[in-house]
Amino acid sequence: MHDFAADIAACAKDVEAGLAQHLDVARLSGPGPAAERVVAAMRHGALDGGKRLRPLLVRQAAAIFNVSPANALTAGLAVEMVHCYSLIHDDLPAMDDDDLRRGRLTVHKAFDEASAILAGDALLTHAFGLLADPICHPDPSVRIALVTELVAGSGAGGMVGGQMRDIEGEQGGFSGDQISTMQAMKTGALIRASVRMGAILGGADARALSVVTAYAEAAGRAFQLADDILDVTATPEAMGKATGKDANAGKQTLVAQLGLDGAKVRLAQTVNDALSALRTFGPKADGLRATARYFASREN
Amino acid sequence: MHDFAADIAACAKDVEAGLAQHLDVARLSGPGPAAERVVAAMRHGALDGGKRLRPLLVRQAAAIFNVSPANALTAGLAVEMVHCYSLIHDDLPAMDDDDLRRGRLTVHKAFDEASAILAGDALLTHAFGLLADPICHPDPSVRIALVTELVAGSGAGGMVGGQMRDIEGEQGGFSGDQISTMQAMKTGALIRASVRMGAILGGADARALSVVTAYAEAAGRAFQLADDILDVTATPEAMGKATGKDANAGKQTLVAQLGLDGAKVRLAQTVNDALSALRTFGPKADGLRATARYFASREN
Repeated sequence: MHDFAADIAACAKDVEAGLAQHLDVARLSGPGPAAERVVAAMRHGALDGGKRLRPLLVRQAAAIFNVSPANALTAGLAVEMVHCYSLIHDDLPAMDDDDLRRGRLTVHKAFDEASAILAGDALLTHAFGLLADPICHPDPSVRIALVTELVAGSGAGGMVGGQMRDIEGEQGGFSGDQISTMQAMKTGALIRASVRMGAILGGADARALSVVTAYAEAAGRAFQLADDILDVTATPEAMGKATGKDANAGKQTLVAQLGLDGAKVRLAQTVNDALSALRTFGPKADGLRATARYFASREN
Repeated sequence: MHDFAADIAACAKDVEAGLAQHLDVARLSGPGPAAERVVAAMRHGALDGGKRLRPLLVRQAAAIFNVSPANALTAGLAVEMVHCYSLIHDDLPAMDDDDLRRGRLTVHKAFDEASAILAGDALLTHAFGLLADPICHPDPSVRIALVTELVAGSGAGGMVGGQMRDIEGEQGGFSGDQISTMQAMKTGALIRASVRMGAILGGADARALSVVTAYAEAAGRAFQLADDILDVTATPEAMGKATGKDANAGKQTLVAQLGLDGAKVRLAQTVNDALSALRTFGPKADGLRATARYFASREN
């Protein structure tokens, strides 16, 4: 049996150490010395928190292609920096207006709005710096492929576009298909990029890449379904943030469309889709399998 | 005599066409279809405006190394997208709170704050997508070097760090050296990146790169000095935005430190520094020379 709890803990520890190392005034300096306040705000938004699921997916997908956890770490840090920037910007008053994140003050509450905007911008910028660094992978063509993948996952046709659609959807009137598209972009696209980046690190051929992509797309749907279900069923204490918020805002989620029981059935089906996609892979894909199962059972 | 007016017009035309082509729903789509509202906000913030000086610098630096304007365009578009994202975010209420930019509504006034934040994020993201695209340069190692350069110019040790320092400096008490550091980062770093990216496109060796860097750093100082002088001397009509704003806000500029006449003397010296740096280059550097002279004489 794959020890998922040990894997997630080991990955989170590596990510925490890696981010602490890279989010540093000396390392982030360019033509001038990195501004200490923006580095402090970046650290507040990126350190001490989160399950680091995206770097875990990078690592687990890379493992299929015999890439070591150490060699998958830098790409994982880049994805995590993009994830953290998106949380900082999403929490802003003009967006979701959240004061708490993982039980701590959001960046604009701990610092101020301008610092939060700039910290997000800088995390996004330096994520690409990490991918371009030779420590990420010795082959520049692989590093460029990683940049392209992260752009697709996080840009106007991925995460940012999904966030835009989510805001538009708050006016109501989204169909089930429109909700699915929005969710596939808002959270699914970066999950998809994480898995694909792991495979790209390992030199996956087109067929293998399409297999892990099918897994990633199902896993992303499962992750979002679980999130929507937890928004209804979990306590704020378990989640470290307000719950019931989507329902109260009249947000168009699949739980609102399918009902709680219907959403749970859909979640189980979706996890099975993710597992089925991996059937041609042997035990090296057990990490990805465990993560898909975890999405169906997580409690926060 | 180099025809600077023709060069700047030709470059601006190419940049406008290139941005219009790339800032397009189909081209920006990823795992999902790019959100139309965010693409519209990106276009509002990036099209129909500006002198496109940064792509011009990319082109002029590339010309020294025999790179054609067409082959320098994509890298120039990437720098311009970063410049435009920075303007969108700087104009936000939490930052400079400007309603007008180039005589038109700023993005958060024409759309809303959330759309402006996301449009800026997406422009930054897709700038790296352009650099990673083979149309930018056939050699992946050159494309990676361009990514690294743009990160240095626009991150916490460059443009974003300079913006953070500028906000901190509004509390007053900055010395002349601190103002120079802030300005070298806020506007200088991206000008420096533009020039260096042109040289990198042309395969410049370390010595040539250090020569163009010396030019770029002086040119960046000249540009910012001219900006500070124009803030005091130009009309809002000529600038297409409010003037006297820095002085009214008690902002620490070199004009406030040196006086208007002192700043003009410093500007002339700085342009001479930029020209001196280029003395080892022949007529192929006339474009960069003309731009440095233009910085001393511009009226908006």
